[in-house]
Amino acid sequence: MSYKQILYNKAPEPAIDPTLNSGTFRLNTVPRPTDVPADKLLVRVHYLSLDPAMRQWLTAKRSYIAPVELGAVMRGQSIAQVVEVGSSLTSQFKTGEWVVAYSGWQEYALMGAKEVEKVTLPAGGRPTDAMSVLGMTGLTAYFGMLEVGQPKAGETVVVSGAAGATGSIAGQIAKIKGAKRVVGLAGSKEKCEFLVKELGFDAAINYKDPQWKKQLKEATPEYIDVFFDNTGGEILDACLARAARDSRFVICGAISQYNAAKPQGPTSFMTVISQRVTVKGFIVFDYAKKYGAALQELASWLSQGKLKRKEHIVPGGIEGTPKALVDLYAGVNTGKMMVEVAPISEALGPKAKL
Amino acid sequence: MSYKQILYNKAPEPAIDPTLNSGTFRLNTVPRPTDVPADKLLVRVHYLSLDPAMRQWLTAKRSYIAPVELGAVMRGQSIAQVVEVGSSLTSQFKTGEWVVAYSGWQEYALMGAKEVEKVTLPAGGRPTDAMSVLGMTGLTAYFGMLEVGQPKAGETVVVSGAAGATGSIAGQIAKIKGAKRVVGLAGSKEKCEFLVKELGFDAAINYKDPQWKKQLKEATPEYIDVFFDNTGGEILDACLARAARDSRFVICGAISQYNAAKPQGPTSFMTVISQRVTVKGFIVFDYAKKYGAALQELASWLSQGKLKRKEHIVPGGIEGTPKALVDLYAGVNTGKMMVEVAPISEALGPKAKL
Repeated sequence: MSYKQILYNKAPEPAIDPTLNSGTFRLNTVPRPTDVPADKLLVRVHYLSLDPAMRQWLTAKRSYIAPVELGAVMRGQSIAQVVEVGSSLTSQFKTGEWVVAYSGWQEYALMGAKEVEKVTLPAGGRPTDAMSVLGMTGLTAYFGMLEVGQPKAGETVVVSGAAGATGSIAGQIAKIKGAKRVVGLAGSKEKCEFLVKELGFDAAINYKDPQWKKQLKEATPEYIDVFFDNTGGEILDACLARAARDSRFVICGAISQYNAAKPQGPTSFMTVISQRVTVKGFIVFDYAKKYGAALQELASWLSQGKLKRKEHIVPGGIEGTPKALVDLYAGVNTGKMMVEVAPISEALGPKAKL
Repeated sequence: MSYKQILYNKAPEPAIDPTLNSGTFRLNTVPRPTDVPADKLLVRVHYLSLDPAMRQWLTAKRSYIAPVELGAVMRGQSIAQVVEVGSSLTSQFKTGEWVVAYSGWQEYALMGAKEVEKVTLPAGGRPTDAMSVLGMTGLTAYFGMLEVGQPKAGETVVVSGAAGATGSIAGQIAKIKGAKRVVGLAGSKEKCEFLVKELGFDAAINYKDPQWKKQLKEATPEYIDVFFDNTGGEILDACLARAARDSRFVICGAISQYNAAKPQGPTSFMTVISQRVTVKGFIVFDYAKKYGAALQELASWLSQGKLKRKEHIVPGGIEGTPKALVDLYAGVNTGKMMVEVAPISEALGPKAKL
């Protein structure tokens, strides 16, 4: 009985090379533990989360989290099922329970009780929601938009990476909370249609259209009060040039820059002075004390159909994860990108249909 | 009886050309008004303020203030003396009184009562203080540092353009208010010595030294909690790379970028996310309601010798103003740069010795 894991093999230079074993990651096979320690759970990973921040975890720079060490299992969150419970944890956990775990990229993992979070879902919820709209992704959108961006009634909100996991939720939250106008920036005509027709954005702009800057100007006749940025680079720059007086620029991510050898900074920086812009970076972890209330609100919006989730699930098992990560940076996904390590149909017990 | 004025002649491309008449500005001579209108004052300009923001006033872009129109008298603040009072203002003003006026670059100007501010000075004050440490310059440093930067005891504060008018006051205010460590960035060895020996900065770095980035790192062992930026560009970038967790980056000016054809943005932008940096632009006008209390505090520090002022006065009359402005961008000055349009010795009345 063995299982597969994916290890961090060598530093990207600067782009991630998805070729297994010779590239950024390598495949490893290890035996499944026969004796689960008393204070551990053995979990089986079903869905791995892919997140833009992962590229940063591979860089040995001062950051909000230590980099992944070479040779270690690649860091990542997953939806997993408890398959064996250590003897001291039997009163807390049962075989068959679903958890969110920082398991890393592997098919099985031994986790401490505090390293997992039991999945609890509202009506209409799916297990994968717990690492998407009702997990770190949803919380990132929630706190970034509401605590940092603070859109007010009558204001114009622009979201970049708007068809991505976080952006799609952030834009919807702005709309739910009464923003006058929510505009999304995304990388294809299809994504733009999705934003307007399915998620209710007021407008969406394909930044690959040669006329996108003109369209951005037309779509923001009263300038931009809140910009929720997932991309950085040229898009941040163009939006800064459209910043309204006293606007808030929420820096959530900079996916366009993560793989760049020479990052590109915003040159419209003078607007920061003339329009008194606040540009603020944030990390969702800082709001941990407020997760509970936020998740309750997100769950109620989801149940009521006010908030729509979108998943992009890559089938085919754990070997496809490096390629899926590269695809994430290329913008292949609409909505939350994840890898199906093991389908729900293979899950144990009565909750298999969740 | 005529007087000289300097008009905005043609747009910089992109640097200011100081050559009078063929360059950015031209000289004009107009007759002195023989009849002062009832609701006006005739003032004689003695000292013109030179400010980095002036370059921005020559650019027809969305900004915090309308651009100067071609052919108009160049905008600027001055220390002037009332030489004639219109008949309806005689109860409010007297010949010989000193005022701060947005007179523009001219030797005489007709001003409305609300377009001037009477100069009131504390013990040891000079008329020129009213447009420097006790005027817009001091207020800019005060509100930028205390309202936007908010340094706390134990924190490290870095100021760029630290030997300039605003920077030199901003750094001193941080020190007065209990910052643990105040570091200045300036453009010469002499300026650095001035900061440390005369103003009490804890360290100063000459950004023209090839080793300046290394020196910046050494001078900020606990990173940077507050950065008060007057320069932008490469210096802002290097300081962002040294940003401490939850730091505040006060964007007051960007003198290195004002004359650039292609502005340079900060590329260390990822730190904004990982360290949760707040980057905030501001304009002193937004704090107008608090000017009174701020000026009182600044005046008391000046009188007590806690706050030191430094002036760089360019003699030779109004014709030298365009060249002095170019010198300001070249960093020729230490402290507040102004042009002596008419010496105090030529002033009227008993306050001539102020």
